[in-house]
Amino acid sequence: MNGIGIDIGGTNTKIIVINGYGRLLHAERFHTLGENGYGEFIKRLLDRVKRLKNIWEPVSVGIGAAGDVDPQKGLIRFSPNLEKWHNAAITCPLKKLTGLPCTLENDANMAAWGAYVLELKRKYANVLTITLGTGIGGGLILDGKLYHGATGSAGEIGHNKIQPGGERCHCGAQGCLEAYCGSYAIIRDARKAIKSPEAFVKKYAAPGRERLNTICLTRAADRGHKTALRIWRELGANLGRGLADAILLFNPDCVLLTGGVSKAWRHFIGPLKKVFEAQQIATPFQKVRLRVAKNADLGVFGAALLGMELRKK
Amino acid sequence: MNGIGIDIGGTNTKIIVINGYGRLLHAERFHTLGENGYGEFIKRLLDRVKRLKNIWEPVSVGIGAAGDVDPQKGLIRFSPNLEKWHNAAITCPLKKLTGLPCTLENDANMAAWGAYVLELKRKYANVLTITLGTGIGGGLILDGKLYHGATGSAGEIGHNKIQPGGERCHCGAQGCLEAYCGSYAIIRDARKAIKSPEAFVKKYAAPGRERLNTICLTRAADRGHKTALRIWRELGANLGRGLADAILLFNPDCVLLTGGVSKAWRHFIGPLKKVFEAQQIATPFQKVRLRVAKNADLGVFGAALLGMELRKK
Repeated sequence: MNGIGIDIGGTNTKIIVINGYGRLLHAERFHTLGENGYGEFIKRLLDRVKRLKNIWEPVSVGIGAAGDVDPQKGLIRFSPNLEKWHNAAITCPLKKLTGLPCTLENDANMAAWGAYVLELKRKYANVLTITLGTGIGGGLILDGKLYHGATGSAGEIGHNKIQPGGERCHCGAQGCLEAYCGSYAIIRDARKAIKSPEAFVKKYAAPGRERLNTICLTRAADRGHKTALRIWRELGANLGRGLADAILLFNPDCVLLTGGVSKAWRHFIGPLKKVFEAQQIATPFQKVRLRVAKNADLGVFGAALLGMELRKK
Repeated sequence: MNGIGIDIGGTNTKIIVINGYGRLLHAERFHTLGENGYGEFIKRLLDRVKRLKNIWEPVSVGIGAAGDVDPQKGLIRFSPNLEKWHNAAITCPLKKLTGLPCTLENDANMAAWGAYVLELKRKYANVLTITLGTGIGGGLILDGKLYHGATGSAGEIGHNKIQPGGERCHCGAQGCLEAYCGSYAIIRDARKAIKSPEAFVKKYAAPGRERLNTICLTRAADRGHKTALRIWRELGANLGRGLADAILLFNPDCVLLTGGVSKAWRHFIGPLKKVFEAQQIATPFQKVRLRVAKNADLGVFGAALLGMELRKK
C-alpha cells in the first residue's frame, strides 16, 4: 500500500511516494513558480501526479502547503509567497484526476504529523511541534490526532507576541516570536553584532557556501565564537518565552523542535530550559519532554502519512 | 438520573444536585476553612455528600477545585489559597464513601464545560472559555470534549505574558494577562487613576456595597464617568492581546467570556474587537465567535455535568 505526499512551498514543490511503513520509494521536486499563476502550476502538478499514479498505484494523496489553507474546502486561501493565488483549489483537481482521497493541510501541520509518527512513534498523546526555519510554524497533536482548529490554522505559535511594539515581523505585525527567532531575524541580529561579517563568513562558513546563515553561525559557535554563542543564547531565551505561553495554554506531553535552525539546539537549549525552570506555574514545565527532530523533510513525509492515515477511516 | 457537583474554592465550597437535564434540585455552601487543614475539610465534605447521596441517589460526583489539580490521580497538588494542602486526595475518599464514579478537574476547566453545555448547547466543536474574576482562568473544549492536557492545567491563559517585565502578578511572575485584567489589577489601576476614590464610591457603588470594585466601576461607566470608561477600554485592549495569542495557537470556533468582570463587557468589547481586526493573520479572527455567558456558577454546574457525562462512557 503506497501513498503520495506533496509539499507546496514558495520556492519548490516536493513530491514523494512512500509505502505503508513510511519508507521512501520515490522523490522528486520542481520549481513552484507561483508568479506564473495557479493555472500553470496545477497543470504541471497534475502531469507529475498522473505519471506517479500509473507507476506506484497509490491509495491516497496528502498535500501540505505554505500559507493560509482551508482543509475542509481543499483550498489555499492565500500565501505570502504565492501572491497571485487566491482560493486556489488543490484537492478538487487532484481528486478528479486520481479518484483517490486527498487531504490538504498547512505545511506546519503536516510537519507536526510527520514528526509525531516518524520521530515520536506516536508515543505521546499531546504534542506541540515547532518548525524553526526562515519563519516559525507550529502544529498540534491532541489525543493522537492532528488538530487543525476551526479554519485550519491552529498552531500559529510564530506570531505569538513576545515583545509588544518590538521587532517588525514578515507578517506585518510587531513583536512576534518569528521576528526574534526566525532565521531571517537571527541573521539580521548577527549582521548587527558581528564586527566584520565578511571575515566571519570566510572563517566559519561551510566550504562552497560562503554566506552568513544559521549554519555558519552554528559552526562559529561550535568553535567558541563569543558573539555567535551570545546570539544563540538570546535565541534560546526568546524561544523559551514563546514556548512558555503555549505550554501554559496547551499543557503538552512533549514539545518537538524541527526545522533547520533546530540543528543548533546544543547552543540554545540551556537558556531555553532556564526560562522553563523559572516559571511560577511549575507542573506543566516539569512534566513536558523537550525533543529535537533528527529527520529532515518532515513536511512532505507528514503529508504522505496523514493522507494514508485518514484514508483508513 | 441525578448528579452531584462540588466546587472547592479558597473561601467557599459549593455543592449542588442537578438532574439529567441540568436542572438544579438542591444547592448548599460552606466555608472551606482551608487553614484548618485538609483532614478537617474532607470530613465535613464527606458528611454532606453522604447526606445528599441518601436523599437524591446520584449516579456520579464531579468536583472542580481552584489551583493545580491532578485529574488522573484525583489530587489537589497545591492551591495558592489552600496553603497547607499538598497532594490532597479528593476523589479517592469520595469514591470510597459513595461507590460512585468521581471526576476531578481544575475549576476553570469545569467552568468551561459548564459554559459549553449550558451556554453554547454544544453548538461549536472548539471553544476557549476565559473566566474573568479576581484571577483569570481558562478552559479548552476540543472536538466537543474537555481538554485538560498532560497534567490537568491546560487553558492557563491568565499567565500568558502580555508585557515582559510588566506588572507583578499574584503568581509571582511579571507581565501576565491576569496582572492587567484580573479584578485586583483593575482595582489597582482604578485607585491610581481616580482622583477621589471615596467620593467615587459614594456616588457610584451599589447601595449597601460601598467598595471600589468592578461593579462600582461598571456603574460609573454606565453613567459616562470618563476615567471608568478609560479603564474598561484599556482592559479590552489588554484582554484582546492575551486572547489573540491564544486564538493564533488554538484557532477556536468560539471564545466565551465568563466570570464577574465579563458583566462589564459592553464597556470593553469594542477595544477588544479592534485588536482582533488589526491582526495580520486574519482568518482565525474573522471566523471566531465572541460570546458572553449569561449564567453564573458555571463552575459547579460544569462539575456536576461533566461527572454525569463521563459516567456514561
